[in-house]
Amino acid sequence: MFSSDHHIRVRYIETDQMGVVYHGHYFQYFESARAESIRQLGLTYSDMEKMGVIMPVIEVQCRYLRPARYDDLLTITVILKELPVHHKIEFSQEVYNEARELLATGRVVLYFMEAGTMKRTNMPEALRVKLQPYFTHKS
Amino acid sequence: MFSSDHHIRVRYIETDQMGVVYHGHYFQYFESARAESIRQLGLTYSDMEKMGVIMPVIEVQCRYLRPARYDDLLTITVILKELPVHHKIEFSQEVYNEARELLATGRVVLYFMEAGTMKRTNMPEALRVKLQPYFTHKS
Amino acid sequence: MFSSDHHIRVRYIETDQMGVVYHGHYFQYFESARAESIRQLGLTYSDMEKMGVIMPVIEVQCRYLRPARYDDLLTITVILKELPVHHKIEFSQEVYNEARELLATGRVVLYFMEAGTMKRTNMPEALRVKLQPYFTHKS
Amino acid sequence: MFSSDHHIRVRYIETDQMGVVYHGHYFQYFESARAESIRQLGLTYSDMEKMGVIMPVIEVQCRYLRPARYDDLLTITVILKELPVHHKIEFSQEVYNEARELLATGRVVLYFMEAGTMKRTNMPEALRVKLQPYFTHKS
Repeated sequence: MFSSDHHIRVRYIETDQMGVVYHGHYFQYFESARAESIRQLGLTYSDMEKMGVIMPVIEVQCRYLRPARYDDLLTITVILKELPVHHKIEFSQEVYNEARELLATGRVVLYFMEAGTMKRTNMPEALRVKLQPYFTHKS
Repeated sequence: MFSSDHHIRVRYIETDQMGVVYHGHYFQYFESARAESIRQLGLTYSDMEKMGVIMPVIEVQCRYLRPARYDDLLTITVILKELPVHHKIEFSQEVYNEARELLATGRVVLYFMEAGTMKRTNMPEALRVKLQPYFTHKS
Repeated sequence: MFSSDHHIRVRYIETDQMGVVYHGHYFQYFESARAESIRQLGLTYSDMEKMGVIMPVIEVQCRYLRPARYDDLLTITVILKELPVHHKIEFSQEVYNEARELLATGRVVLYFMEAGTMKRTNMPEALRVKLQPYFTHKS
Repeated sequence: MFSSDHHIRVRYIETDQMGVVYHGHYFQYFESARAESIRQLGLTYSDMEKMGVIMPVIEVQCRYLRPARYDDLLTITVILKELPVHHKIEFSQEVYNEARELLATGRVVLYFMEAGTMKRTNMPEALRVKLQPYFTHKS
């Protein structure tokens, strides 16, 4: 399993008139945290785009347990439970506030696709090499 | 069953550098369409907030089948399959482009809550009266 | 002078915890209204991008007089005071609520640029032909 | 003069189909940077809201010199040239990329207002005390 924490400060624009973070904004928190977790592995999502691989989002889900508020310093935990075999990758995300209360849990499924042809492709080898060590603890 | 169509023109800000609508933006399309569908019933979400009832989003899901693009005139179909019994209401949403291709399907669960106490409450009577006729076709 | 009105309903996501529309969102209202005003002329911004011309924003300004609120049906008036001579075009925008109160005034300067070379270019002839009649009333 | 630097990583959602950061997003960068600069002084904007003072934005301006791109680590420099005398405060902002190229310059004018009455008020004493030392170097 691969897991990584990332911190995001809630911006004023992300609140709504209920005084909490608008539900749709969590997906940019998830994405920002996924990008950081890839960076921690020594690669960037931009690198992958330059290699001709894009990662469109295919499915998302999110459950909201407690509200996030303006200026909260959120912790987004990105979890990859399984190393992708083919073109599909699924991330889990958990959102905590500074009191370590769980605010939301999300699931995001993406495909690896060739930018030119828009055909599904395998996870780039450069990323597989970085992730592999986190999934070989059984041997 | 209650169902209602609503049209939304994709804005430039809603595209990303993949040249398509960013996945997180679909939830504001869903919400905007839900608000319009309530308006068509002769009520507004603002009216409900003035009555002291807010509707936080509890869970969302979305599947992306085909990309939406800048300037597309989308049709958002809002579907309410069941009349809420207690504090929970679940909407289905479908997104079509002008060629009537299905772009995405979504599910949004909201609670009715008292704004003051933040306690769960039943669907306001004013809304129930408007929706009831769509769910009494069996008798 | 060319002038054109466009209507936009304020979305929930566009409010913030002050209970009003977040100041940064006005620029997408302006842009959406500009796109509609070009459409009314019988052209679209997408057409122009397909012709290889993009219009990056070079400068913006906005004054906020009264707040816009959730569910307000805004009128955005787009005004082009001068027909562009070279690569530069400047729009004025005014925002009104349903009570015809002036909420905000804005100014947006854009350049016409070739998408391929990113060099400044003149206003496309296709657009000039549409706009010319609004600026020849004196002769 | 008070000046403070703040770093912001560009999110995917902030890009548009031109492949650059959408012009309207700079205002949330400015605001986020202003909030951090107040935090560095030992106060937060949330504290001020709890004290009953809100700061609506009255006027903004921005000039765009070079595009910001996905994943850029921007530096936002917040500058307060004059200590406010009454209810008005004006910030300048500069945006740099990692190559220290100046991407944009902005100006934001805000008012101090009482949240309850929506009347203009003076800058809270708690903030004045923090800022004063930066403006007394001449004496």
